Amino acid sequence: MEEQLPNWLKKRADITPARPAIEFEGITYSFKELNHMVEEMAGKLAAKGAERGNTCAILVRNHLDSVVMIHALFYIGVRIVMLNHKLTANELAWQIQDSQASILFSESYFTDTLKGIEREVSTVSVYIKEELVESVCPQVMADFYLEDTATIMYTSGTTGKPKGVMQTFGNHWWSAVGSALNLGLHEKDSWYCAVPIFHISGLSILMRSVIYGMKVVLVEKFDEEEANWHLRENGVTIISVVTSMLNRMLLNLGERNYPSSFRCMLLGGGPAPLSLLERCKEKDIPVFQTYGMTETASQIVTLTPEYSMEKIGSAGKALFPSQIRIEANGKQAKPNEAGEIVVFGPNVTKGYFNRVDATEQAIKAGWLYTGDIGYLDDEGFLYVLDRRSDLIISGGENVYPAEIESVLSAHPAVFEAGVTGVADEKWGQVPLAFVVLTEEVTEQQLLAYCREHLASYKMPREIVFCDHLPRNGANKLLRRKLKKEDGRG
Amino acid sequence: MEEQLPNWLKKRADITPARPAIEFEGITYSFKELNHMVEEMAGKLAAKGAERGNTCAILVRNHLDSVVMIHALFYIGVRIVMLNHKLTANELAWQIQDSQASILFSESYFTDTLKGIEREVSTVSVYIKEELVESVCPQVMADFYLEDTATIMYTSGTTGKPKGVMQTFGNHWWSAVGSALNLGLHEKDSWYCAVPIFHISGLSILMRSVIYGMKVVLVEKFDEEEANWHLRENGVTIISVVTSMLNRMLLNLGERNYPSSFRCMLLGGGPAPLSLLERCKEKDIPVFQTYGMTETASQIVTLTPEYSMEKIGSAGKALFPSQIRIEANGKQAKPNEAGEIVVFGPNVTKGYFNRVDATEQAIKAGWLYTGDIGYLDDEGFLYVLDRRSDLIISGGENVYPAEIESVLSAHPAVFEAGVTGVADEKWGQVPLAFVVLTEEVTEQQLLAYCREHLASYKMPREIVFCDHLPRNGANKLLRRKLKKEDGRG
Repeated sequence: MEEQLPNWLKKRADITPARPAIEFEGITYSFKELNHMVEEMAGKLAAKGAERGNTCAILVRNHLDSVVMIHALFYIGVRIVMLNHKLTANELAWQIQDSQASILFSESYFTDTLKGIEREVSTVSVYIKEELVESVCPQVMADFYLEDTATIMYTSGTTGKPKGVMQTFGNHWWSAVGSALNLGLHEKDSWYCAVPIFHISGLSILMRSVIYGMKVVLVEKFDEEEANWHLRENGVTIISVVTSMLNRMLLNLGERNYPSSFRCMLLGGGPAPLSLLERCKEKDIPVFQTYGMTETASQIVTLTPEYSMEKIGSAGKALFPSQIRIEANGKQAKPNEAGEIVVFGPNVTKGYFNRVDATEQAIKAGWLYTGDIGYLDDEGFLYVLDRRSDLIISGGENVYPAEIESVLSAHPAVFEAGVTGVADEKWGQVPLAFVVLTEEVTEQQLLAYCREHLASYKMPREIVFCDHLPRNGANKLLRRKLKKEDGRG
Repeated sequence: MEEQLPNWLKKRADITPARPAIEFEGITYSFKELNHMVEEMAGKLAAKGAERGNTCAILVRNHLDSVVMIHALFYIGVRIVMLNHKLTANELAWQIQDSQASILFSESYFTDTLKGIEREVSTVSVYIKEELVESVCPQVMADFYLEDTATIMYTSGTTGKPKGVMQTFGNHWWSAVGSALNLGLHEKDSWYCAVPIFHISGLSILMRSVIYGMKVVLVEKFDEEEANWHLRENGVTIISVVTSMLNRMLLNLGERNYPSSFRCMLLGGGPAPLSLLERCKEKDIPVFQTYGMTETASQIVTLTPEYSMEKIGSAGKALFPSQIRIEANGKQAKPNEAGEIVVFGPNVTKGYFNRVDATEQAIKAGWLYTGDIGYLDDEGFLYVLDRRSDLIISGGENVYPAEIESVLSAHPAVFEAGVTGVADEKWGQVPLAFVVLTEEVTEQQLLAYCREHLASYKMPREIVFCDHLPRNGANKLLRRKLKKEDGRG
C-alpha cells in the first residue's frame, strides 16, 4: 500500500493551496501558484522531448525557475541528474555521459560551459530556459512511486571516477519525515535555502517544502548580511548552513541577536569547531549539528534540541526511522572506540547508477559503509571525527583527493601524486598536492594543467615535489601521512 | 528498504530518553522509564506463554498498566486483539474465538466478565495483571515490520457478525505521519487521551506518542471538569473529542477560556452540529473536524487549520499521503453531489481477519468503500452527511442496527426486527427498535432479553411493535424508513 504516494506538489496545491510555498527575490508564491507554473513548465519541457522514463540533466543556479523546472520534470516522470555548476565542462560532460541523460536543460548564463559540453557529448540535446516557448500538454504523474529514482547526484569516492547516487522518491520522503520527527513542524515554518539546490542540502529543502506544506526562502547565493536580515526581519525559522556560512553570519551579526521565532540553525558539512559552537551557545543560537550525505538524501543523524548544548560537538543520534553503528576491524565498536560509520534506513540510497561493484562494496544488506570515521559515546551519541577517509570539505563542497591525483597523474611529467587537505581560514580546508616527477616541470605548469581539468574549488593551493609518497605494506597510499613539513610528502 | 522500522518505543527511549512519554494519575514517566516498565512487563507476559507470532486479546481500562501491556506485547511480537470492555461476556467471547486469540490478558476489575468468557471459550488462557509475577527474559523485537498486523479491532458492518479489522504497523505509522504533516508537531506537544485506548481514537494517540516522542496525558474516564483543568493548567496542547464530550466541556468552561498554547480540539466521531462549531468559533477554540474509522487507523480526512473557520462543518481534505473520492451510481460523483465516501492510502487496512469475502467487498484495488455518505464541495472539501448507511453513533461508540436486529430476531416471539437511530440530547443518538411478532411478548420482556446479549450502550431506548417492516423491491430492509410516527415502523 505504501509504494505510491500522490504527486507531492499537486497534493499540497490541493490541500493547502493558499499557503506560501516559495519566496524568491522578494516575491512569495503560494502552492497553488507554484503548481500552476510547474504545469506550464512541464508543457514546455515536454515540447522539447522530455517524457516519462527519460533521464534529463539540469545545469541551473538557485532560482525560482530552477525549482519550477525540477518539479516539472517530476510531473513528467523524468529522472533528474542534478549537475553542479561549479564543475568544468569536461567534468560535466563526463557525468552527462555516465548518467545516459538524453536532454540537458540549462540557462543562457552557462552558454560557454554548454558549448564545451556539446563539444564533448554528441548524444545529448541541450536547451536553455530562455528558449522554452512552445508547449504541449503532458500527462502529469498522479502518483510518485517510492522505488523510482527521482534524482541522481554525482559524488566521488576515495578512488576512481565520480559515481551517480540514485535518490528515490522514497529516500526523499523518508528523509523529510525523519527530519520533521526530529525538528518538529510548525505552521509558520520558513526554511532559508542559500545552499545549492543541486546539492542534497538544498534539494532536500525543496522536498520538505512540498511534503510539509512549508515556505522556502530561496536565494541565488549566500550572503551573510542578507541571511541575517531574513532571520531577523523576514520570519525565517530554519536555515541550513555549513561552518563557513555560520562563521560569516556571526561576524556580521555582531552584538545583535536572532528573534525567538528563529528555531533551528541546521549545521552540516563536517565537524564544527567547538569554539564556534560555544560562541553560538553564548548568543542562545539554536544550533543543531547534523550529519548526512548525498547517499542518505541529507540528514541521517541530528542532535535533538534538548541535547544541543549538553552534547555540544556531537551530531546526535540517528533520526527516527534510521539506524547507525560503528565498525572497527570488522566488528561493532565499543562505546568511545573510533571506527567507520555505517548507516541504515529508508533514506539510504539503493546504490550508484550503473555501478554494481561500487554499490556492492558500499552497501551490504542495506547498511551503507560511509567511509567516515567517528565514535558513539556511552549514551550512543555520534561524534564524527573525519569525513570519508580522505575527503576534503572546502567551503561546503566535497573535494576528493583521488580526483585531483588522477588529473595530476595524467600529466606526462608526473610519476605519481598524492593529495590531502590542509586547514584554511576562509574555506575550512583546501587541497594540497604532493607529486613525484619523471621529468622536470614547474609548479605553475602543473597548476595551469589542473585549472584546465578541475573546478576552481578543487584547485590545490600548492604543489609539493617529493621523492616518494608514503604507502603501507599493501602499497596503498597513506594520504594522512602526506605532510609538507618533512619534505617527504 | 521501508518494510521495517526500528521498534518505536525503544527508538524513542534511545533518542529522547528524558522526554515525558505519559502522565497518568498525576505522575509523569519518561520514554526511558516507560521502556523499562515495558521490558519488565514483556518478561511477565512471556512467562505466561505469550510469544512471537501469537494472537493475544486484552480487556483493559485506560490505565498506565494497559499502555505498558500494549507496548510489551509489541515487544514480544504478538498481534493484539483490542477488546471493548463495554461489551457483554457473550460478545467478547465471540470476538476472542473469531480472532483465534490464545491468551487473554485483563485485570481483576473484570472478574465477572472474565468468568463469563471462560464459560464460553475453552481455548483461551485468561490472566489478570494482578497475577503477573514470574518473569522470563523474552527476545525483544528490534524492528517492526510494516506489513505485520499490530492490532485487530472488531467493528460491525451493516449486516452480519462483527469483523476484525487488521491494523498493521504500517497503517499506524502512516496514520501518525499523516496527522503530523497536517497538524504539525511541536516540541511541547501534549495529547490528552480520554477516549478509550481499545478504540482507534485512543490507540492512535499512544502510537503517535512513541513515533513523535510526544507526551500523552491518559485518564481512565472522560470528565469535563478534569479535561478543562488539563487544557487550562497542565499544558495540554491537543485533545481528541467527540461531540458529546465537547458539549460537556463547553458547558463546564462557561465564561473561561483556553490558553493560546492549546492548539487543537480534534473532533471526530460523526458530523458535528453547526451550532456547536459556531460556539467554539466565538470562543476562539481551534476545532479541527476530522473523519476516520477503525479501517483507516484513525484520521484520514482532517480540516487544515487555515480552513477551520471558513469551511466550518467540513471534515476537510485527505491527509497528505491519502486520497478520497465520492462514488454515486458506480461513477465518480460531481462536486456537491452526494455519494459513498471511498478512501485510499497507506493507513487503510489490508482487510478483515479471516473474512476474504467481506474484505473483497469493502476493498477494491486498495480503495476502501466506507459505506458512509458525503460530498466534496467545489474546492474538494469533504462534507460527511451520514456515517455508514445505518450506523448509529451513541456517545462516540458505533452501534450497528444489524447487531441489535440479530439479537431481537433470535427471540422466539419475534418474526423480524428493524433498528434505526433517533436523536438523543445526551448521547447524540440512541437505537430505536421495530419488531413484527409471531406470538405475544411485552416490551419489557424483549428489553430484558436484549440486556442479556447486548452491551448497555447498544440497548434500544424503546421497542415499537408493528405489522411489517418497510422493504424495497429486492426485499432489503429500508432502515431509514423506520419511523415511530406512522406506527407502521
